[in-house]
Amino acid sequence: MQMGQWLARVREERPLVHNITNLVVTNVAANTLLALGASPVMAHAHEEVADMVAIARALALNLGTLDPYVVTSMDLASEAANRRGVPVVLDPVGAGATPYRTRAAMRLLETRNIQVLRGNQGEIGVITGAGGEVAGVDAKAAGTGLADAMMRFARDGGLVVAATGERDLVTDGEVVYELENGHPWEAAITGSGCSLTAVIGAFVAVSDGTKGGLLEATVAAITCFNVAAEMAAEGASGPGSFQVRLLDALHAITPGDVDARARIRKG
Amino acid sequence: MQMGQWLARVREERPLVHNITNLVVTNVAANTLLALGASPVMAHAHEEVADMVAIARALALNLGTLDPYVVTSMDLASEAANRRGVPVVLDPVGAGATPYRTRAAMRLLETRNIQVLRGNQGEIGVITGAGGEVAGVDAKAAGTGLADAMMRFARDGGLVVAATGERDLVTDGEVVYELENGHPWEAAITGSGCSLTAVIGAFVAVSDGTKGGLLEATVAAITCFNVAAEMAAEGASGPGSFQVRLLDALHAITPGDVDARARIRKG
Amino acid sequence: MQMGQWLARVREERPLVHNITNLVVTNVAANTLLALGASPVMAHAHEEVADMVAIARALALNLGTLDPYVVTSMDLASEAANRRGVPVVLDPVGAGATPYRTRAAMRLLETRNIQVLRGNQGEIGVITGAGGEVAGVDAKAAGTGLADAMMRFARDGGLVVAATGERDLVTDGEVVYELENGHPWEAAITGSGCSLTAVIGAFVAVSDGTKGGLLEATVAAITCFNVAAEMAAEGASGPGSFQVRLLDALHAITPGDVDARARIRKG
Repeated sequence: MQMGQWLARVREERPLVHNITNLVVTNVAANTLLALGASPVMAHAHEEVADMVAIARALALNLGTLDPYVVTSMDLASEAANRRGVPVVLDPVGAGATPYRTRAAMRLLETRNIQVLRGNQGEIGVITGAGGEVAGVDAKAAGTGLADAMMRFARDGGLVVAATGERDLVTDGEVVYELENGHPWEAAITGSGCSLTAVIGAFVAVSDGTKGGLLEATVAAITCFNVAAEMAAEGASGPGSFQVRLLDALHAITPGDVDARARIRKG
Repeated sequence: MQMGQWLARVREERPLVHNITNLVVTNVAANTLLALGASPVMAHAHEEVADMVAIARALALNLGTLDPYVVTSMDLASEAANRRGVPVVLDPVGAGATPYRTRAAMRLLETRNIQVLRGNQGEIGVITGAGGEVAGVDAKAAGTGLADAMMRFARDGGLVVAATGERDLVTDGEVVYELENGHPWEAAITGSGCSLTAVIGAFVAVSDGTKGGLLEATVAAITCFNVAAEMAAEGASGPGSFQVRLLDALHAITPGDVDARARIRKG
Repeated sequence: MQMGQWLARVREERPLVHNITNLVVTNVAANTLLALGASPVMAHAHEEVADMVAIARALALNLGTLDPYVVTSMDLASEAANRRGVPVVLDPVGAGATPYRTRAAMRLLETRNIQVLRGNQGEIGVITGAGGEVAGVDAKAAGTGLADAMMRFARDGGLVVAATGERDLVTDGEVVYELENGHPWEAAITGSGCSLTAVIGAFVAVSDGTKGGLLEATVAAITCFNVAAEMAAEGASGPGSFQVRLLDALHAITPGDVDARARIRKG
């Protein structure tokens, strides 16, 4: 796979990504999309989410600071997205931490067509039935057999599943990719996973929507983001400067940087 | 016009600006006001917005992530502001993107006395009837005849209208100013327009409230912010470092910097 | 008191702190906790706050952008925290600015066991009956007799009270500590007080829960945060770079730095 070309396509088409995300990362997710060359919009009013989906090319849902109003926002937005063929990316932040969050994630997965599910290994372990312990929104070591459970879940549900962590696993149910880019600083700032979810939205927005296209777009999005994180970490003095440099790197990164540094293994 | 003196007055009087703004920029808008030398407060509870307006010297409303609760907050706050003579600045983020946002903006303009309306050229084009296409909250090229439509709208409504972009247009219905300061990086970060709206709040707060005073305050606010952006861009390596340097520049900028760099043309 | 050992304990135990905080600082508070070595979670849905408290080791409540939904969230969460013995830290942002905020703060103090109350001198003055004027959320000079009023309030209520400002006062009703660390830049950014409240949550989480332990944990938290602020200020060029460097410093600061620079006086 040539990953760099995906970044070029995002910058060329500048897709509008509609985010319904949590209160912690709204600013960071918007800035991440802008820095990379995509176009963000945030909207959660029941009165407008379907209209916003109608002009967007992807919908990114993040359960980070859920409440009943936002649950309904996501319900309405994803219904409209499914009707219009707009791809939906779901980030089940904190699934496993409380029954409310786990149920909200499962309900969206059961009642809507989700194209990509991305979480940390703990969250994905809970949702795919592999086990894993989730304390708050931090991932503990995911249960064993995560890749197997992910493949089964992806195949049964017809979606792409990504579990990110020190190494990232991505599968469409047929093949598993193991991605080795990234930097430990990513875990020292809030919202790096949530921003990545928004970035996956931008990449699937420029895909052809087939299972193969969604899989490759997801792998490319994670790889681009993580290569930018590696570039940002060079010269960072801590989580504050890393965060600033990450936005700079997302803006500066070239398709050539991505291809030169990508470390992707087919499992 | 001597623009620098407006900045000096803001720092001397340190006006409290009550913001009801969107979830993406709450932090950035508050930090922008603090960096410049004004005092921010954010409050949206129906139970307290009128009380907060009563101790504030300006009210800044931003429609960026509207929902019915916040629509009512703005309704109550602007009603109290009108009753008390507190100037109201309105930022119709995303007007034209969805009917819900357009209606919310129009309704505030029809039922309340708004002193300053500021948006990007697409949003202002939609509201003033000049046309213009709005995708999400990004401005596409505004329709032609924007300045004419703005003048008509400003004259009919008795308010100041500002459309910001590569060049900024500001009018009170009689005269149009064209402002040429600013830097392309401003479009690469989220919330620069929203922060500018909050800054306009701080400047109109120290004006005499006349039409001429509001016009000059708005021109001064945009010029100060954009000169700070130019200063911040020198040495920035991307949108992340630009954002950090912008707060530093808003704090460091002097009235002399503003006067030396202001590029204002009377249309 | 050896303050540095408290920081070491936080990093070793990495306590989960459940925050119900305001819209301005959600991101900053989460990043502050992560940078320091603690684990943040934000959750406000009525359906899940009790479940989240059950896996957390401290609950930090911040009244900064209150509304009726969040008031109930705090009510439910603090009830669960009291039942489970999870320490509660309360930050009465803007108490005195509007009756709504003052009442919300007083009601929590009257109906729940709050272990630590932290605010600026104006807010604490209003709550403890010492007087003080609050404009927005900025502290004006607190009324005289603040330390006396704080001692009385702390003794009567059986809690630790902290009033931060140029100098910070902390008391359990028996003894008053005067803390002299910190830097004026802290007042030039939004959320430094709110982040400090979250940090106090992390420190009381690793205390033994006795009055003496809570007092020492609070003194240690404020001292660590303020020493980090001093370190961050060296080399900062304004509020933007100070904010970035503060996260870096919170990550880099060692127990030895804290002990070497702590300036604590027993009143």
